[in-house]
Amino acid sequence: MKIINGGITSPKGFKAAGIHAGLKKSKLDMAMIVSETEAVSAGAFTTNVVKAAPVIWDRKILEKGSARAIVVNSGNANACTGEQGLADARTMAEETAGCLGCSADSVFVASTGVIGVNLDMEKISRGISVLASSLGADGDAAARAILTTDTVKKEAAVTVEIDGRTVTIAGIAKGSGMIHPNMATMLCFITTDAAVSRQALQSMLGRGISDTFNMISVDGDTSTNDSVIVLANGMAGNSLLEEGSDGFSVFEEAFTYVLGQLARMIVRDGEGAGRFIQMKVTGAKSKTDAALMARSVVSSSLVKAAFFGADANWGRILCAMGYSKADFDPLLVDLSFSSAKGEIQVLSAGRPLAFDEGRAKEILLEKEVFATADCHQGSAEAEAWGCDLTYDYVRINGDYRS
Amino acid sequence: MKIINGGITSPKGFKAAGIHAGLKKSKLDMAMIVSETEAVSAGAFTTNVVKAAPVIWDRKILEKGSARAIVVNSGNANACTGEQGLADARTMAEETAGCLGCSADSVFVASTGVIGVNLDMEKISRGISVLASSLGADGDAAARAILTTDTVKKEAAVTVEIDGRTVTIAGIAKGSGMIHPNMATMLCFITTDAAVSRQALQSMLGRGISDTFNMISVDGDTSTNDSVIVLANGMAGNSLLEEGSDGFSVFEEAFTYVLGQLARMIVRDGEGAGRFIQMKVTGAKSKTDAALMARSVVSSSLVKAAFFGADANWGRILCAMGYSKADFDPLLVDLSFSSAKGEIQVLSAGRPLAFDEGRAKEILLEKEVFATADCHQGSAEAEAWGCDLTYDYVRINGDYRS
Repeated sequence: MKIINGGITSPKGFKAAGIHAGLKKSKLDMAMIVSETEAVSAGAFTTNVVKAAPVIWDRKILEKGSARAIVVNSGNANACTGEQGLADARTMAEETAGCLGCSADSVFVASTGVIGVNLDMEKISRGISVLASSLGADGDAAARAILTTDTVKKEAAVTVEIDGRTVTIAGIAKGSGMIHPNMATMLCFITTDAAVSRQALQSMLGRGISDTFNMISVDGDTSTNDSVIVLANGMAGNSLLEEGSDGFSVFEEAFTYVLGQLARMIVRDGEGAGRFIQMKVTGAKSKTDAALMARSVVSSSLVKAAFFGADANWGRILCAMGYSKADFDPLLVDLSFSSAKGEIQVLSAGRPLAFDEGRAKEILLEKEVFATADCHQGSAEAEAWGCDLTYDYVRINGDYRS
Repeated sequence: MKIINGGITSPKGFKAAGIHAGLKKSKLDMAMIVSETEAVSAGAFTTNVVKAAPVIWDRKILEKGSARAIVVNSGNANACTGEQGLADARTMAEETAGCLGCSADSVFVASTGVIGVNLDMEKISRGISVLASSLGADGDAAARAILTTDTVKKEAAVTVEIDGRTVTIAGIAKGSGMIHPNMATMLCFITTDAAVSRQALQSMLGRGISDTFNMISVDGDTSTNDSVIVLANGMAGNSLLEEGSDGFSVFEEAFTYVLGQLARMIVRDGEGAGRFIQMKVTGAKSKTDAALMARSVVSSSLVKAAFFGADANWGRILCAMGYSKADFDPLLVDLSFSSAKGEIQVLSAGRPLAFDEGRAKEILLEKEVFATADCHQGSAEAEAWGCDLTYDYVRINGDYRS
């Protein structure tokens, strides 16, 4: 696998555009991603009972199994917008399809931003035609146009060799950012020129998400708009990838790597985040137990606040593992903290070790800190990623109206 | 039911004491609650896999079904303290039993405070003998001695008439407060002079907790020491209360009222809390659905931060209901906010209403605010209580070492 400096237009046959359509004051707020040819599609969407209109549309057209394009707007989530919202999402697909000369059910729609306000369809329609006429090889504008309170764009791209052909996988994402007056949304769009079967792509996405996007936590809230959409147009010319076929594992590894990179970029850019936290659980009885423990730790407000204070607070970590519903014996747990500044063990077989607080502080004051818990009960492991709980988080999410 | 101005020594035959044993710098840090006669006991303890030594001891002696006393220390949680911790908890029970002339398995033990540090048993032993010799009718010192970072003591007492006898139920609690260097603990001790069967008392406690202590959230973390212990000595002389017997429902209502009052006191005194939040869900398909939704809302960092900002953020509330795993139709939900300053509806059948932001702000700036969601799908309802997420929460839990 080769990591390349590219974006969603790096895979063969993909074009993209990003523009300012006027939904936001001045920032880019609409994007379009298009494949020259009908591409195999896969998707994963929010589990929230409250689903935004574009999510309802996308879940329907996902059944078709192939698509040409994704049209996205930021600034307005088109959520809690009733029948009008559903009609507007469909119109976005239809107008995009009109410009591209494909059918509406070949166009995924995504929105992020304010809740409960209907889209300004005049601006959206104008935006769609401008986007369609400005499609190009530059994915950068699209990567920036999907952002809300994110502070940096999130792009990843890799290539792998599969039966002599160079296959490229790329993605862009936007993170968990609150936007006035409502909620966070995670969007991720993946493009690849691999030839891969629909079933293989969808199941690979399911596995990949459970190890990546489902293992990050900024504040534990699941939005109405969360969407991951994948388009694979086969233009790399490799022989069709199926579960277990030659090169499939190589492809899946690269695909999951891109998802993981984007997921970690989202946490690094979490609202008000000052510190990136990785929790690794090893020696667990099962993968499920390991994942439950790791995710519980990075989701704990107490743990997050402790990392904000650069506090080697093993008690809160052990406690969060304890209420995770995972099966483990706390009297077997070893726990250590590490960072670029070194490593320090604080717990051995469930018992606290005397350690140098100053040394621990020095390690935990780094921007990227790691905690590792070894349960000594098996060989399963999992990693979860989070960020600290800071004054800025409270300010951004509570104080912005005051 | 009559609300009285009393404490755990208000029921007949109960004495208590609270002293400074030296575990904390200057505040009271040990308490004892004693019944003249062996009392029927009931208890509920943390579900955390990581259980403190006193919790392990209490769960064992709970099987006996009766007890004389509860001995408590604050300042040290006796958690993650290994074999020595278990031995120390047992010693606390044995020494208390020695002073009272009962058997060790008649003495519940509770601890709250620092984790991973063994108890100073010299101070504890001295404290126990002082406590035993200073038992009296004043529950106030005991109520204060169990506190950690709580800012106020938490006491409630009521009387009810059961077959001509006056039955008294009283309780004290300590809340969710972080204590250097570790975690929160909720402790609650209930005394009553009612004659009630062990089975009836235990099942009543289970039902009561699910509607009260299980419906509050300060930061969602479940501690290693959480304990609720009930002693009922029968000295009121009423005929034995059994499930369904005369007066049982009157007694259960009063008992649950005391639990509810103490639970709400804990949230009002939550760390850094500036605002008390009640979330009521009505018209749900089932009690379980209603409880899931209500608890999910008061546990959401986004919702809590919005209340900190006095922001009528119905989107975050609907979103938190949406990921609660409850079964409901968001397109039927009505939502309104209220306080001493009045009421304002913000959502009707899942659609946002245009409302006066200034008016909403005025309502939400109150110290006690209420949100009510009507699901219009049934007749089940539930209430949950929480507090806002404030700068002080982050400071207390993150910044205290910096």
